[in-house]
Amino acid sequence: MKIIAVGAEGDIGRAACGELSARHEIIRVGRSSGDIQVDIADPASIEAMYRKVGKVDAVVSTTGEVHFGPLSDFTHEQFMLGLTNKVMGQVNLVLRGLDYVSDGGSFTLTSGVLDRDPIRMGTGAATANGALGGFVVGAAVELPRGLRINVVSPGLLEVSEERYGSFFPGHERVPSARVGRAYAKSVEGVVTGQVIIVE
Amino acid sequence: MKIIAVGAEGDIGRAACGELSARHEIIRVGRSSGDIQVDIADPASIEAMYRKVGKVDAVVSTTGEVHFGPLSDFTHEQFMLGLTNKVMGQVNLVLRGLDYVSDGGSFTLTSGVLDRDPIRMGTGAATANGALGGFVVGAAVELPRGLRINVVSPGLLEVSEERYGSFFPGHERVPSARVGRAYAKSVEGVVTGQVIIVE
Repeated sequence: MKIIAVGAEGDIGRAACGELSARHEIIRVGRSSGDIQVDIADPASIEAMYRKVGKVDAVVSTTGEVHFGPLSDFTHEQFMLGLTNKVMGQVNLVLRGLDYVSDGGSFTLTSGVLDRDPIRMGTGAATANGALGGFVVGAAVELPRGLRINVVSPGLLEVSEERYGSFFPGHERVPSARVGRAYAKSVEGVVTGQVIIVE
Repeated sequence: MKIIAVGAEGDIGRAACGELSARHEIIRVGRSSGDIQVDIADPASIEAMYRKVGKVDAVVSTTGEVHFGPLSDFTHEQFMLGLTNKVMGQVNLVLRGLDYVSDGGSFTLTSGVLDRDPIRMGTGAATANGALGGFVVGAAVELPRGLRINVVSPGLLEVSEERYGSFFPGHERVPSARVGRAYAKSVEGVVTGQVIIVE
């Protein structure tokens, strides 16, 4: 398959591409790295990305920003970042990508553990993750041409320990190989409308 | 208790107030109806509402707009309506309300069935509902002074049949009395961080 991987250079993106690149052609996309650049906050940038790449068999998104902070300190703008970037950025990868994914292809988005196993300062992420779970449930029943859609929801990766570990006391750390297999299940498997949990 | 009910004149708001008004003082808030008016899309309007009402023991929100339409027709702006209004409007009722709810008080928000039992044209609503589910999970662990937060997620109400029934083929219709009890459970009970399903 020809797969476009948006956010390929992040910890989760590397896990997904590590698994998928063994069997598929990957076009790596990043904000400033990769084969092609995209700003997922800008629908026109997403459209330009798809026009450059052309037809693909799968879209894998492992990208999206959220703000972390104590609930009582969140401003409107800080809270909206998760909704406009992590949620709407990934939603627009689907809405704009509908014409570029071939029959029977798939979209695989990324959320995370915080809407089922919360941490301090994680309300923005919990909200964005929940939104993406709802989105794939709603979108799966309307996708045309046998297209499928899922969202992978991984716990904190072992490789992310140094940067984020102290925010996740007692959470299990997830090996990248397990995370990668979740993307393979979504891309190569049969499920649709699922939150694929990796813990 | 003194309870502020935002969206009191909608079908779900009437169900909530019908149950709670038997035992509590309700301040009814609407966009154009009620004792006080608010535009939940405008944080300043929410702030003004709380300043007028002063201290309350509970905030009940049964409000929020989303766009309904086929997935392939959704524009960026139509999709954002659910995120800015139904999600961020209710989130701001919490963020701005923290200083106005008395010790041991509660916030009760409203989502809906579509993130677990989808319909055609419901992706915007499914996404907003999922977001609100994630929000209460994340927020519950950070609320100060024994405050609690839940979201009620009702199926289609019997009283909403005429307006929305044709969009929900085969979905169970929920009596308003059952919906009302879910708000009583959240306001008068002990649970927090829960999606209270009414089907």
